[in-house]
Amino acid sequence: MKMHTAKSTPNHRRVAIFLAEKGIEVDTEQVDLRGAQNLAPDYLEKNPFGRIPCLELDDGVCISESVAICRYFEAIHPEPRLFGTSAEEQAEVEMWTRRAEISFLMPVAAAFRNISGFFKDREEIVPEWGHVSARVAAETLPKFDARLSQSVFLAESGFSVADITLAITLEFAKRTQQTLPYDLPHVSRWFEAVQARPSWSAD
Amino acid sequence: MKMHTAKSTPNHRRVAIFLAEKGIEVDTEQVDLRGAQNLAPDYLEKNPFGRIPCLELDDGVCISESVAICRYFEAIHPEPRLFGTSAEEQAEVEMWTRRAEISFLMPVAAAFRNISGFFKDREEIVPEWGHVSARVAAETLPKFDARLSQSVFLAESGFSVADITLAITLEFAKRTQQTLPYDLPHVSRWFEAVQARPSWSAD
Repeated sequence: MKMHTAKSTPNHRRVAIFLAEKGIEVDTEQVDLRGAQNLAPDYLEKNPFGRIPCLELDDGVCISESVAICRYFEAIHPEPRLFGTSAEEQAEVEMWTRRAEISFLMPVAAAFRNISGFFKDREEIVPEWGHVSARVAAETLPKFDARLSQSVFLAESGFSVADITLAITLEFAKRTQQTLPYDLPHVSRWFEAVQARPSWSAD
Repeated sequence: MKMHTAKSTPNHRRVAIFLAEKGIEVDTEQVDLRGAQNLAPDYLEKNPFGRIPCLELDDGVCISESVAICRYFEAIHPEPRLFGTSAEEQAEVEMWTRRAEISFLMPVAAAFRNISGFFKDREEIVPEWGHVSARVAAETLPKFDARLSQSVFLAESGFSVADITLAITLEFAKRTQQTLPYDLPHVSRWFEAVQARPSWSAD
């Protein structure tokens, strides 16, 4: 198998850290986002939605969407469990993954795309929406701080894909210099712990 | 257990149809969204993110996020499988669920919220973003049509939570009179089939 991806992007980081936690190595092939290689016919045959990463299996089946790729590896290589085990744990991990993704990653990404105009050659941007999104992200982070004042990781059952999602978003927000309350005590404690894991250096 | 919810919203519909497919009945309690009951302290204790639906278990544990609630029921009541069985099937269902959600439900919701101003008493809206989102949704639907020209349902393994997500979005877009290419042949054939299922009338 082979993963078509673009290193250093948040969704590549999400899968790379996930794989490192499981001790899995996968061959990668770089996709040039800046050069719009992800929108070229060759790539759209693998993923009509033009996003990275995309895992191409040996039989030619292509799995896109970073969380779908993670679920694939969770199924074929269950340990350590990163999506929870019991029904309640699975639901809790899904809940926190979605909160991290929908309520934080999405506004952080919208702020980046609409303010920086990084992809303005291929999508319509609305700077005002970027600023609204930045404010939404800043207002949301304290909710994660409140959660992390009660729990070591987002899900009570321990480190999970939800933590990876929140951490790669925070990393991306810092790298793109977004204004967020980075010094929240519990988020800071948690983020240091996540960054101290060997998987954090996965590339 | 009890589900706090707001009937006729897309995310309530998603869970209601999912439960009907499995033949599960759950007591519900209505949350008045228009009156902002979901943002009142009582409700925020159950779900700090203020969204519906929220499933309250008998031990007081609260599961929010419609897909997390669906996963909980998939785990305790596996048949019929709506998230796939094999590793590839699970990944494929997750992939199509995310495509339906991120690339279609999100822009349809953003178009509604930013153009109608339905929630403008509690969130900043940017009408221009609403119009961009409406165009993105309209450009995305043909990708689902292309998929449905090759497969009876979104995932090859059969009807799944991904179909429910796409169908409730289409229903919502129609109800809120969004401009979309509703007459795409394969989407139309598929949508009729989904609406013909007994679960579609779940409320």
